[in-house]
Amino acid sequence: MELETHLSESQSAVPGTVRPGGRTAKVRAAVLEATEDALAAAGFHTLNMDQVAAAAGVGKTTVYRRWGSPVGLVTDLLRDMADRSLPAADTGTLEGDLRANAALVLKTLTDPRMGAVFRAVIAAAACDEECAAALHGFYRARLTEWAPVVDRAAERGELDPGTDALEVLRAVSAPLYYRFMISREPLTEADARRAVDAALAATRAGAYATGD
Amino acid sequence: MELETHLSESQSAVPGTVRPGGRTAKVRAAVLEATEDALAAAGFHTLNMDQVAAAAGVGKTTVYRRWGSPVGLVTDLLRDMADRSLPAADTGTLEGDLRANAALVLKTLTDPRMGAVFRAVIAAAACDEECAAALHGFYRARLTEWAPVVDRAAERGELDPGTDALEVLRAVSAPLYYRFMISREPLTEADARRAVDAALAATRAGAYATGD
Repeated sequence: MELETHLSESQSAVPGTVRPGGRTAKVRAAVLEATEDALAAAGFHTLNMDQVAAAAGVGKTTVYRRWGSPVGLVTDLLRDMADRSLPAADTGTLEGDLRANAALVLKTLTDPRMGAVFRAVIAAAACDEECAAALHGFYRARLTEWAPVVDRAAERGELDPGTDALEVLRAVSAPLYYRFMISREPLTEADARRAVDAALAATRAGAYATGD
Repeated sequence: MELETHLSESQSAVPGTVRPGGRTAKVRAAVLEATEDALAAAGFHTLNMDQVAAAAGVGKTTVYRRWGSPVGLVTDLLRDMADRSLPAADTGTLEGDLRANAALVLKTLTDPRMGAVFRAVIAAAACDEECAAALHGFYRARLTEWAPVVDRAAERGELDPGTDALEVLRAVSAPLYYRFMISREPLTEADARRAVDAALAATRAGAYATGD
């Protein structure tokens, strides 16, 4: 039985006025979860609208009308992932916060399900500009969410106030994503530790000063 | 007219004895160039064996028999790219060599044709394990080719002899690939400069010491 049938009682009479958590939100959650399942299982190149609709228990017409294409599904999933981005750490030191950040990236990329989902959305973005914009939006949201860890360190006098917070955070993530997606090398805690050591050393040497 | 017809005069009578530069090599070169053209124009997800055969002027049967699938084409292209990897710089200083390395990565990724080819092969590797192994082989060949720039710097006394050469080189590439493929941000000379500044600072601070 389809989710739409289950949920039809709570459907609003006026389009656009459906409350958050109502039918529209539930259909979206079910479709995005089914999209994530499909990406985790088989990647972007086999993502199929009909199968996503069936797995989500939502009518095909709804899925085609609202998302249009596999690219539309991935784009909306990336928006949802950006909204669900975890809040930044606040351990009291820049080193502690960056280690928490690196641990989170490591955990995500080495998780069998989430690692596969990230590989799939990055590959999808290579095939489509709308997906690429959504992927960019996801990382922009994540980097912005964590920027205060660098700004707070500058306020505490740990760093030069002219340090580019986003560059410091990119420096932590980049070596991990490079192994994960580009050179396809194993990714371990030693890599996360080294990424943070290197980012801290480069930051303290002024490599990420703004106005460069 | 097909390349195979053109080339049939120079075909060896005994399989496996075709000289380098002979028919086998010419067919491979034509097919891999057509593969690269197709990846540059439209990415991996639309790579089509019949179109590659037609563009290369090679019979479909040959292409199917020798490469099997689009994944087989990409895998062989990556092997060929590894063989064509440019020799490392030798400017006399680690900084000079790393700047030459960063400039080469920047030039490749921002070149409209080669940038599109790299996006396509990285996306292909996300969809297929054989491609992933070939991509890994390509970067392994490239990093190994450039490792002497770090080892020579250690011999000159510029660096601690216990420095992990591959880690230094990954540190130069990673921030550029991160912007290019992951966060999908613009990639400029300032990014290449910053990647080298950061890699040098981290190297000098001992972040890439071996035996970690």
